[in-house]
Formats: sequence, structure tokens, C-alpha cells
Amino acid sequence: MGQNDVQDNGRARGPLGVAVVGAGYWGPNLVRNFQACDRFRLRWLCDLDEARARRVLGGYSTVQTTADLGEVLADPEVDAVAVATPAGTHLDVALAALRAGKHVLVEKPLAATYADGLRLVEEAEQRGLTLMCDHTYCYTPAVGRIRELVLGGELGELHYVDSVRINLGLVQKDIDVLWDLAPHDLSILDVILPEHVRPVAVAAHGADPIGAGQACVAYLTLQLSTGAIAHVHVNWLSPTKVRTTMVGGAKRTLVWDDLNPGQRVAVFDRGVDLAAPQEIGAEERRDMLISYRSGDMVAPALAEREALRSMVEEFAEAITTGRPPLTDGRSGLRVLDILEAASRSLAYHGAVVGLRTGH
Amino acid sequence: MGQNDVQDNGRARGPLGVAVVGAGYWGPNLVRNFQACDRFRLRWLCDLDEARARRVLGGYSTVQTTADLGEVLADPEVDAVAVATPAGTHLDVALAALRAGKHVLVEKPLAATYADGLRLVEEAEQRGLTLMCDHTYCYTPAVGRIRELVLGGELGELHYVDSVRINLGLVQKDIDVLWDLAPHDLSILDVILPEHVRPVAVAAHGADPIGAGQACVAYLTLQLSTGAIAHVHVNWLSPTKVRTTMVGGAKRTLVWDDLNPGQRVAVFDRGVDLAAPQEIGAEERRDMLISYRSGDMVAPALAEREALRSMVEEFAEAITTGRPPLTDGRSGLRVLDILEAASRSLAYHGAVVGLRTGH
Amino acid sequence: MGQNDVQDNGRARGPLGVAVVGAGYWGPNLVRNFQACDRFRLRWLCDLDEARARRVLGGYSTVQTTADLGEVLADPEVDAVAVATPAGTHLDVALAALRAGKHVLVEKPLAATYADGLRLVEEAEQRGLTLMCDHTYCYTPAVGRIRELVLGGELGELHYVDSVRINLGLVQKDIDVLWDLAPHDLSILDVILPEHVRPVAVAAHGADPIGAGQACVAYLTLQLSTGAIAHVHVNWLSPTKVRTTMVGGAKRTLVWDDLNPGQRVAVFDRGVDLAAPQEIGAEERRDMLISYRSGDMVAPALAEREALRSMVEEFAEAITTGRPPLTDGRSGLRVLDILEAASRSLAYHGAVVGLRTGH
Amino acid sequence: MGQNDVQDNGRARGPLGVAVVGAGYWGPNLVRNFQACDRFRLRWLCDLDEARARRVLGGYSTVQTTADLGEVLADPEVDAVAVATPAGTHLDVALAALRAGKHVLVEKPLAATYADGLRLVEEAEQRGLTLMCDHTYCYTPAVGRIRELVLGGELGELHYVDSVRINLGLVQKDIDVLWDLAPHDLSILDVILPEHVRPVAVAAHGADPIGAGQACVAYLTLQLSTGAIAHVHVNWLSPTKVRTTMVGGAKRTLVWDDLNPGQRVAVFDRGVDLAAPQEIGAEERRDMLISYRSGDMVAPALAEREALRSMVEEFAEAITTGRPPLTDGRSGLRVLDILEAASRSLAYHGAVVGLRTGH
Repeated sequence: MGQNDVQDNGRARGPLGVAVVGAGYWGPNLVRNFQACDRFRLRWLCDLDEARARRVLGGYSTVQTTADLGEVLADPEVDAVAVATPAGTHLDVALAALRAGKHVLVEKPLAATYADGLRLVEEAEQRGLTLMCDHTYCYTPAVGRIRELVLGGELGELHYVDSVRINLGLVQKDIDVLWDLAPHDLSILDVILPEHVRPVAVAAHGADPIGAGQACVAYLTLQLSTGAIAHVHVNWLSPTKVRTTMVGGAKRTLVWDDLNPGQRVAVFDRGVDLAAPQEIGAEERRDMLISYRSGDMVAPALAEREALRSMVEEFAEAITTGRPPLTDGRSGLRVLDILEAASRSLAYHGAVVGLRTGH
Repeated sequence: MGQNDVQDNGRARGPLGVAVVGAGYWGPNLVRNFQACDRFRLRWLCDLDEARARRVLGGYSTVQTTADLGEVLADPEVDAVAVATPAGTHLDVALAALRAGKHVLVEKPLAATYADGLRLVEEAEQRGLTLMCDHTYCYTPAVGRIRELVLGGELGELHYVDSVRINLGLVQKDIDVLWDLAPHDLSILDVILPEHVRPVAVAAHGADPIGAGQACVAYLTLQLSTGAIAHVHVNWLSPTKVRTTMVGGAKRTLVWDDLNPGQRVAVFDRGVDLAAPQEIGAEERRDMLISYRSGDMVAPALAEREALRSMVEEFAEAITTGRPPLTDGRSGLRVLDILEAASRSLAYHGAVVGLRTGH
Repeated sequence: MGQNDVQDNGRARGPLGVAVVGAGYWGPNLVRNFQACDRFRLRWLCDLDEARARRVLGGYSTVQTTADLGEVLADPEVDAVAVATPAGTHLDVALAALRAGKHVLVEKPLAATYADGLRLVEEAEQRGLTLMCDHTYCYTPAVGRIRELVLGGELGELHYVDSVRINLGLVQKDIDVLWDLAPHDLSILDVILPEHVRPVAVAAHGADPIGAGQACVAYLTLQLSTGAIAHVHVNWLSPTKVRTTMVGGAKRTLVWDDLNPGQRVAVFDRGVDLAAPQEIGAEERRDMLISYRSGDMVAPALAEREALRSMVEEFAEAITTGRPPLTDGRSGLRVLDILEAASRSLAYHGAVVGLRTGH
Repeated sequence: MGQNDVQDNGRARGPLGVAVVGAGYWGPNLVRNFQACDRFRLRWLCDLDEARARRVLGGYSTVQTTADLGEVLADPEVDAVAVATPAGTHLDVALAALRAGKHVLVEKPLAATYADGLRLVEEAEQRGLTLMCDHTYCYTPAVGRIRELVLGGELGELHYVDSVRINLGLVQKDIDVLWDLAPHDLSILDVILPEHVRPVAVAAHGADPIGAGQACVAYLTLQLSTGAIAHVHVNWLSPTKVRTTMVGGAKRTLVWDDLNPGQRVAVFDRGVDLAAPQEIGAEERRDMLISYRSGDMVAPALAEREALRSMVEEFAEAITTGRPPLTDGRSGLRVLDILEAASRSLAYHGAVVGLRTGH
């Protein structure tokens, strides 16, 4: 079944059939949200451990379980597959799904490597199928508003982005804290940056003070194409939870504190202004005019809407209309590009590593 | 007048005569605190702009003013000189004071360069005079308690230090945000780190998005001799003020939020534990035992005492007893060493720069 | 079916059959939690609007719906009924369920009046059935810990309780803000107060500034039997959400901030001490010795467990063992007693109204 | 010396001579601020314990001290007297000063009783002298802005005011917590309420759980002439410091958190709206249309200016121009009226007590 069939017939024939593959940490959230969205009909929860899948569904569900991905892919009622298995298996599962003609949603990161991710993107493009990355945070009302503010020019030219995502986190066996947490910040960055502001290079510093075998604390510095800077602090060892992103602009600066439900986004009309270069002569450079704005702060009202619900609806919309979703495969690839460069930088003690062409 | 004279006679002959040089931003604070401390008698406030000095003293003061440093240094009643002039003049003023036999307190940074600072340290040592750096934060009750907790082993082996000092700050003409703000964090680090944990290298990333001519946003990563990591974020462009330092240890982690007067220091018995290497075989490495502590948090009661008052008393005590103050010239030098290395790293786009021997 | 049957046979024959009556605001939460608890088997969701009941269950559920309470009560597999209908109907629904031999859980308040509540309590007692009030907050880990601290004497003799529960709330048509929100605070008070500290009288002040027809802002002052005071502020018009309870004791004082997930409960070793009466003579009364403690604060680690889950388990345990649940019908009655007295006080412009005997 | 003399000659002859009487808790703050204001020349610090006065001035001051109030009042260079002695002595000291022709500033409360206060007001009015009450909070930038917002109609008709001022406070021997802390809230209320909204009655509830001899915890409910309500919670026993005032209006609601320097005042465009009475028929009352606004929040930029400095300047301005200061004697009287009524209510177990005519 190709995309066109869905485009032509999707609405007419009712909700899209969907299967969730993977009943671990994230799968249950997808199960819940696909069930709550009437544009989808959840048909399968698939896990190698079928008993786990059953437990996730609970004792009152009519949804089918299976341990056999083939059974899911053979079901003609399944239009789309959501992959929530470990990152190392994303390539195989998603590729099989695409080859079976299914639209695919993949939990972040898109794949274990940039090369793997690229194979998925190309496969989906060749087949005209939707490939979407579940960059959940991009669908929060907060990020939606931030995106509007940045792209609408409300902040002015971007000066810096500073993101902190720290918590006493689950130390992973196979991936370090960068690969675990930074995809959130990088995918957010990907959707809020204007076209002309692109990451060009990255440096990463990290430490593994507990001997876990991979970095548990890491700092990522991104050079942006305009000379602006973005910085990400991720940390599994922090006893307190912090999820704050500051986006500094020439006109305004916003602070997003995701743990402050009453005031998630605050936009400050405060900042430092410089007389424009043409206004001051070369010799007066040292005495340039600096002025400070100290205006009001506005905390815009935000809807309280579960991000996953919006994500699931974006998936339905992308499948139905054929347009790329906000967080399409290419977006997932750009995140993988930065993650791989950051890993190289970590290995080279913080050396600056350039990103692939196209950013 | 040498140190021994003071040691022998200081107490007998009453308070130490002191002069403050520099009536700009910081000088008034020194004036107020020397006046409030009965171990000192403030005799002079010296500034090239004598009218400014008079304004600082106000219309009800018996303290003398002068624009002539020579007059101050010639006064035999002056035992000590506090230098609060721009950093570029620290060498000249402090050197003249030392050569006149005065004990010297210097506002941070100790000098404009490591080499200058070293000249001051050596001059003071040769003359047996007290040379102290006004690293004010080191004298807050919070840092005092943090020092006790770290050095007393309450946190266990140090894992990481993360310090954020951001604010809509005064953009300086001559120094960047690193030299303006990071001395606070670095001097704190200098007094709380145990002997065996020393900074060995530094990388710095920065940006000047407003075209001020120097970095207005900067990130500093310090490699510590044990493999631990310290990171400092300083920023002049942030619309909100943050002054938070996290000190992560194997046993406990503390968070110091200097803007939360009711709970400045919080000590968390939360963290990630790993089974010790000897307890697990090589092949089980991948399945190593990770456990999570999620214990109580204790916010110790702290005295509410002005740091500058304690600093001034430490100066008196060091002069009187001849012992080095907590933040002596050597401490100021170590901070300069890191700042210079950080500046080199900034110039080299984040390259890691080793610190001088001795750290 | 009487209680003894359950006690004897309950465990053997598997989970308790339960029905939820009412699919409005609160019913869905009960549905979710009964489904998640393996000591229950949810058999019915009953609502006069059966379509609403179906919507609550969603399109994947095997649970039956009905609009006919009689059908539910006639089902011999139903051991217990949870009533989540409007307060005015609690008496009829719960009484019918008790008369059908079912154990009953009632959403707060227990009934629309004290007299109605008493009928339910007596009916349940005569039949040996469990009657429980869903005072959900009493089952939060925070209240559990507060109860331990107070009853364990950690705070010393109680001095005052101050509770604030304000929010931009749903203005109700039939009940005022006191009856809507204060049951939470009063039920919490009921479980944390030691036996010898009982509310004896209440005064209430309120206002209806928007002309809603009933109080939208209200303050409740409770005199406790020991001379201590409890105060509750409830407000539907506040633009910010506050849910804070302070429990002051002779030895320690605790602050519960339910909106601060990282530090819900904080126990302060701070306070004012007076020399004990026997230590000071009558004439020195005016010069009595007051001393201030300014010790540490401890924020105990709390489990993150959904209160409703614990509530549901308490219901199962009470049914199975025959012991009264923590928030039994009598507890619900005591809350109704205070609410009715408060309503009288409101009507009499704040006059103090005594509570019924037995407190 | 009468007011007219000052009006005519004040500016010409230089700053106003002022004396501070009382070198206890508050006096030093007045000393500091009169010295910093060039419209005053501080001539005397007077205290029965002259050594205490000397200590307050420190060892570098040219200001004179005396233990003899007569000496101060006899000094023709003294135009104004600031009274910072215990409340019980305000009448005698202020009356003597007024009779000596001096303008008078009195620390809050204006006097120990309403009757005493009235004598001061009348004495000053007869003599054409400025009588001002140091209601310091009324001069904070926050209260200034709140006053503008309320009086400018930005909030719409006032619905409620809720003020919390709690702290581990100094338990006083002679006055209870109401007289100690509530004057702050009541004086703020006095300056922010529009003319047509006046307190008409008060009820107070309190407790003395530590046996201090007077209430240490108290709640005050004010009925306002429009049906709105104001409530004040003052508490000496709270381990945490809270200073929050909420002002609810028909159009907007503001929250002032004096301990949040970065966001002291927040104005919320959130609230509950009702269809206006004329729009709905009598029978539809029960189904009236309630709608909820959930708009943005704006935190206006506020100057960071010490309130006492502005208060001192208001005193100078009132003396010089002859206009009544913002917090004149009448304002102090209105506060005393409420305090006395509240004391009676406390004594009568919370009975509602009407205020004197004129409110």
C-alpha cells in the first residue's frame, strides 16, 4: 500500500490502522495516545516478549498482541507502524515496515547512526511513505509558541541558546548521556531555528565520574552559522531536575522552564543594545554606546495539551495529506549528524568537529 | 614597617590603619566594611577624582580624602592598603604599596596578567607582607559551609562542579565576560577543592553576538586531575539572574542557589551508585550493578553574615598573625592562570589549554 | 453478601468485582485505577448517559456499560460500588448499593448533608459493609509522611495549621467554594490530627464578588481543642495555583507544597521557644525568655505514587479484612459536620459556630 | 517655626535640618537615609541611651548625639523630627516636637491608640505642620505600581485582596502580631484602595500557641464597602518567610511577591467572567454564562529604589510644599482604627466589629 492510496482513500475508509512495536519504556505512551486519537485505530502491540505487551495493555483491552513483527506487517489493515524498540534495532524494524509499505514513526533517535538514518530516509522517499521521528518535545505548546516567536521575528536576530536538561537519570548501558538526552534539545533547536541560522560545528566535553563506561555529564557547544552560539548541558547525576532553555535575541530573550507549569515561557524585553556600526566612527569604537533595556516580561498563555497527542495527530495529518511532518526523517538526520559529531569531539577531548554539508 | 612589627605590636597599639584606593564601583563597599570593623581604622579614601571620593564618604564623615597615592603611602599610620582600582592598574598601585611596607588587599582579579600577579606575590613574600585577594564570595557563609562539606568528605569523591553566573550585566569595555565574572567561580573552586583535585586544563567557548568587541557569553570547561569535570557558564546578556553552583560527589551532591536566601545550600542524598570494580568480573561489566539513592535533602542553617565583613576580618587576622589569608596572593595567581588559559582557548576556538605546573 | 463472606472467601475467589457509577469528572480516574489494581476486577461503568460512559472507556475496552443502576446492583459478581455522581445523589445511590449488600466507596463529600451522611454510616455499620470516602489527598505520599511526623511526635504539640488551596477554578452552580475545595483540607486535617486535638468550633468568611450566587472566596478558621488554630483559604478566582499547607509544632514546623514535586514536604527545625512556665516567676512573665531556633531543614524523600492507586488498595484491604479504612464513613461525617457549621457561619457573617459533640 | 516659613524660605536656606529620635531597631535606617538625601541635613541622633546612639553613628561621623530631647527641640536649625521610639512613647515625643514647631515623621503605628493618634493629627493640623507616618512599604516601587494599576482601572472593580506576611519573627513583649505586622498590609491597602472602596468592618482570629501572652498567629478579614473582601495573615511562628499580596479585580488580578526580586509584581489576564445581569433573565440565573479568561501574564519592569529613600523625599516634599504626604496622619489614623477594631474582635472571639465613621 503506497501513500497515494491513503491520500485518496484514507478519509473515506475510516481511521488509519496502526501498530506499535516495542512495549518497553516509551511504547505504552504511544499505545495510550494512538487509542485516544480517533484518526487511528490501534490494531497491534508487538514485542518480542509478548507477555510484556499484554501487561502494557492490561486486562481490559481488545487490542491484539504478538511477538512476530511479520504478522503485524502482513496485516493489510495496518497502515502505519510506530517503532519504540531500542535504537540499535530501529534500522531493521523501520526498514522492514517501509518495505511492507507502511508509514513509519520512529522513537528518537531516528537510528543508531547517521548512515542508518539516511537509509531510512531514502527508503521512505523512494516509496513515497511518511517517515517521522517522534521528537516529542517539538509538539509541546511551549515549543510551538517559541517557534512562532523566533520565526515571527519577535526575538530579533538570535544571539544564543542555552539549554539545560539534568536529572537523576537512568544510566544507560549502551548510550551515553549525550545520545540519551541531547536529542531532545537538538530536535527542539532544529524546529525553532530560522532557515538562515544553522549549526556548523560542535564541541563536546564530558565526564564519566562514576565509571559507568560512558559520559554521564556532558556539555555541547554548537557554533551557528551567524556567529551565535548554542549550548546544551545534559547530566544523569544531578539530584535536582532542571529543564530550562534560554533563547536570547537582539530584541527579546525568552526563558522556557518546562517544570514551571504556571509560567512555562517568559519573554523578557530586557537586553543590551549597541549603537549600530554605521552610527559610530572607527575611533569611537572603544567608547561605543551601550544601552540597557529593562522592560516588562510577558508570560504568554499556553494551552495545556499533551505533546504526544499532537505528535500523533501530526503523524495522521502527514500520512493523509502526504506533506512532510514537522519532525520528518530529514530532521531526525540533522540531529544524528550533530550527535555523531559530538561523539567524535568527546573522543578527541573537546576538539571542534564540523557538521556535514547541507546544514 | 614590616610584618613582624605588626605581629609584635599590632594588638597593643590599637586598630590597623587602612586606606582604600579607588572610589568607583567596589571601593564604597570596602569603605563601609572597614568602618564597621573595629580591627581597622580607616584613614584615607584615595581616588584620582577626589570629588568622587568625597561623594562616596558623604557629608558626615571624618575620613580624609586625597588624589595623591603618595600621600597615603607616606602616612606612617597606614598599615594596610586596599586596592579597588581598575585591574590594569593593580600592579602599579599594589607594588608601590608593598614597597612602602604596607600590607595589601587587591580587588579581584589580582592583576591584569599572571606575570603581573606573580611580581606582586614575590614582592610580598620577600618583604614578609600580607598580600590578599578580595575573592569576596569565598567569605560567604554558603561557601564556608560548602568548603567544610567537601573537605570533610561529606560529599565523597568529587564528580563534577557546575556553576552558572548569568545576569543582564554591565558590558565592560576592557575585559570580557570571562574576566569579569568567572573569577568568582574560579576563586570559589580554588578554596573548596581538596588538595588532590586540581584543575589541569581548560577549554573555553564564547560568543559576542552583540558586537561588543569581546565575549559576552562564555562557557568554561575545566578538566580536574581526578577525571572530574568543572564547568562555568557566564553571561552578560541573560534577562534573568542565576547564580547556582552544583557540586556533585560520590556520596552526596549539593546545590548552592545564592538567590534563594531561605535555602541557599541544599545537600541531597541522591545519586547513582555503581558496584565497585573489584566486585564485578570483567565480563559482567556491561551488566554492572547500578543502584539509585533517593534519600532526603538537608538544607543546613547558615548564618546571615555579610561576606565582605568576614573578608575584612580575615585580612586583619592575616596581618596580625602573619599567617596567609584564605585567599592569598597564590590563590589569586591560580585564578589568573586559568583565566589566561581560557582566553587562549577562546582565541583558538575552544582548544584545550593546559595549566601551568603546580596545579 | 455480607462482609464476613468476603473476609472468608475473598482471596480465594480472586479479585473483587467492582462497578463505577458516574462517568463525569472524577469517574474516569476511578475507572483507570480500578483497572490498574489487580485486587479488583472492573465490571461496569454506569452512567445515566450511557454514551458518556462508553466514551470514557474508549474504543478498546471490554468493560460493560449501562444506564441502569439496578442492573449493576443485581450483578452477583459485583462486590463493591464506587459512587462518583453529583453530591446530591450520593445518598440514594450509596444507600441502594448498601442495601444490595455492596461495599461502597463515595467520592467526597460523603453526602449533601450531615444527616444524609449519618444515614449512610449507620446503614453500612448495621450491615457490616465497608463504607469509605474517597478523600484522595489522604493517600498521597506527602500526607502519609505528614501523618507519621505529627502522630510520631516529630513536630511536638501542634500550634497551628494553615492551608491554602486556590486556583482559577470551575465555579460550580450548586455548591460554593467551601464545599468544593475545603473537603480536601478538612479531610487531610482529620487524618493528621492526633486524637487529643479536635476541631471544636468554626468561623467562616466569604465573598461572592462576581455575583455567582455563592461564595467564590472563603476563609475558614477552626478552633482546636488545645487552643491551637487551623485556617483554610479556598478561592476559585486566583490566577495562580497554590496548594500549600503549613503545620506548626512546638518542636518543628513543616511546609507541604504540593506543586513542588522535587520538595513537597520540608521540615524546619526553626521556631520560637519560651522558657517553661515553672521556670519563670510570675513577675518575670513580662521578661520571659524567648529563644529562637534556626536549625536545618530536611526535605524527606517521598515515593512518587499515585494517591488514587493507594486509595483503591485501601478500599480492597478494608473490604477483605473488615477493618475500617483510613477515610471511613465516620471520617466523611466529621468533614460534613465542619462544612455545615462553616455554611452557617458564612450565613451569619462570620459568627463562630460550635461543632457537634464527639469531636 | 510654621509651615509657611519653610515654604517661603526652605529652598533658599538649604537643606532641612532633621533629628532622629530613637536609635533602636528602625532608627539606624532613618539615619542612613536622611544622610543620603541632600534635601535634609541630619543634625542629631537622640536616644535615652546616648552610647547606643554613638554606636549607631559609628566612629567616623560628624552627627551629634544627645540623650536629651529638649536639646534637640531647642535647636532652631532642626526643622523636622523623625520619631523611631517604642509606640507607647509616640504621643509624648511627637506632641513635644509639634509643640516646638517641628514637622514630624512617626514610625508606624502612628500612636499606641486611635485617641492618641487623633491628638497628634489635630495638633499638627492646628499648627499647619506636616505629620507623616513612616508606612515604608507604601513607598516601594511595587506598591507604587500597584496603586497606579488599581486607581487607573487596569484591574477593574476590586474583588478581593489577600495578604500574607509571615516569618520567624521577633515576638514582642508589648504588642501582638497584629499590631506588629498588619500595619504594613493595612497601610498598603489604605493607599491602593480607590475612594469608593472602604473597609467597613473587621473580624480577627488569632492564637497564642506558645504562651507568649499575646497572639502570635492572626487572621484579619475586612469587609469592604463594595462587598469585596480583604484578608491578612500575619504570623511570627512561620519557619519560612512569605510576603505575598494578591489583588483580584474584575478585569485582571495581580500578585505581588516581595521576595521575588526578578518578578515582584505579576499582572494576570486570567479570571472568571459572568454574563452581565441585564443580559440574562431571572429564570436563567442558574444557568448563567460563566466564561474563563486564560490570557497572558505581564510582569512590569520596576525600578530598584529603596523605599525609605522615597519616603524621606516625600517627607521633604510635603514639608516644603505644604501638601499632605501620601501617608499623612489621617492615613495613620485609619490604620489605627482597623487595628483597634481587630483587637476588639480578637477579644470577642472573632466577632465582626464595625469601623468608625468616615471610612
